[in-house]
Amino acid sequence: MKILEDRILKEGRCLEGGILKVDGFINHQIDPQLMQEIAREFARLFAESGATKVLTIEASGIAPAILTGLEMGIPVVFAKKQKPSTMDNMLTADVHSFTKWQPYTLCVSRRYIQPEDRILFIDDFLAYGNAAMGAISIAKEAGATIVGMGFLVEKEFQHGAEELQKLGIHVESLAIIESLDNNEIKIKGR
Amino acid sequence: MKILEDRILKEGRCLEGGILKVDGFINHQIDPQLMQEIAREFARLFAESGATKVLTIEASGIAPAILTGLEMGIPVVFAKKQKPSTMDNMLTADVHSFTKWQPYTLCVSRRYIQPEDRILFIDDFLAYGNAAMGAISIAKEAGATIVGMGFLVEKEFQHGAEELQKLGIHVESLAIIESLDNNEIKIKGR
Repeated sequence: MKILEDRILKEGRCLEGGILKVDGFINHQIDPQLMQEIAREFARLFAESGATKVLTIEASGIAPAILTGLEMGIPVVFAKKQKPSTMDNMLTADVHSFTKWQPYTLCVSRRYIQPEDRILFIDDFLAYGNAAMGAISIAKEAGATIVGMGFLVEKEFQHGAEELQKLGIHVESLAIIESLDNNEIKIKGR
Repeated sequence: MKILEDRILKEGRCLEGGILKVDGFINHQIDPQLMQEIAREFARLFAESGATKVLTIEASGIAPAILTGLEMGIPVVFAKKQKPSTMDNMLTADVHSFTKWQPYTLCVSRRYIQPEDRILFIDDFLAYGNAAMGAISIAKEAGATIVGMGFLVEKEFQHGAEELQKLGIHVESLAIIESLDNNEIKIKGR
């Protein structure tokens, strides 16, 4: 998606250890117009998915997820990263975080993911796919179906998309990073 | 705001200790259409504020904040509740959480709140006003101005709005809860 790629090339920064910092427009400060364009693209790419619910993970997934839900006219559920004091009957999955180097537990109330749900998972980054695997585990525990997964930024060299595609999942990434070697952002097809 | 009040009366649940649970449409599962209506109302109420940026707190504030930013055509910044590993030059404020009974630290990169910014703070709940006070502290540290604070749900009996108004802040709450006594939701003016 050209406007997202342009923005990453213009404002993204590489940090040590394969981290791409995009906190000026995606995951700390957010550009709402860009997010709306992103949501429209996801709605187009997953128009045939029959999704009944968008699932994401707090906190950076929420902005693209809510706008995608708005475009598609379906509710959004965000998984919490720690057990809330006031949530019972939970679906949970343990996830190892790439950027934080410490595991966390995804929690979703069973009340909001039902066996008949067709889940579109939306998140900001796809790296090794650990968070996405957590979402798959939660959907499976609920008896629901994953009908697609959309990411703003995929780090292709960490192979998460391959792992998800092996499971037969329809994966769409709006910007695919081929490499961050030598502190240089290389985007696929550019 | 009638549609929000109706939804709270229909789907909200009271828990022990003055907690109003609205996780079916605000802070776990989210209704994007309702959030868009809420954002339009905030944009209307703060139309004269001259806001240059929306500030919120992860995670439940993000959905209404991003839609308000979209309506008003301004960027959104969400404060993080723990120090990220990849953020330098931070503005911070310590906050005592009402629902979680443990303090946390709000973190915002100084890069995204500048002295010339006019900040509209948006959050899901206003209780004692502790999180809002944290936001005020961060704005002050940045040298920026708070031009308004909008909340989806105010718990009037916890007096946060009074504290903010004492500071001369323009506060708008879309649903004001008078009492949750005896597990009954009483909304002001209904």
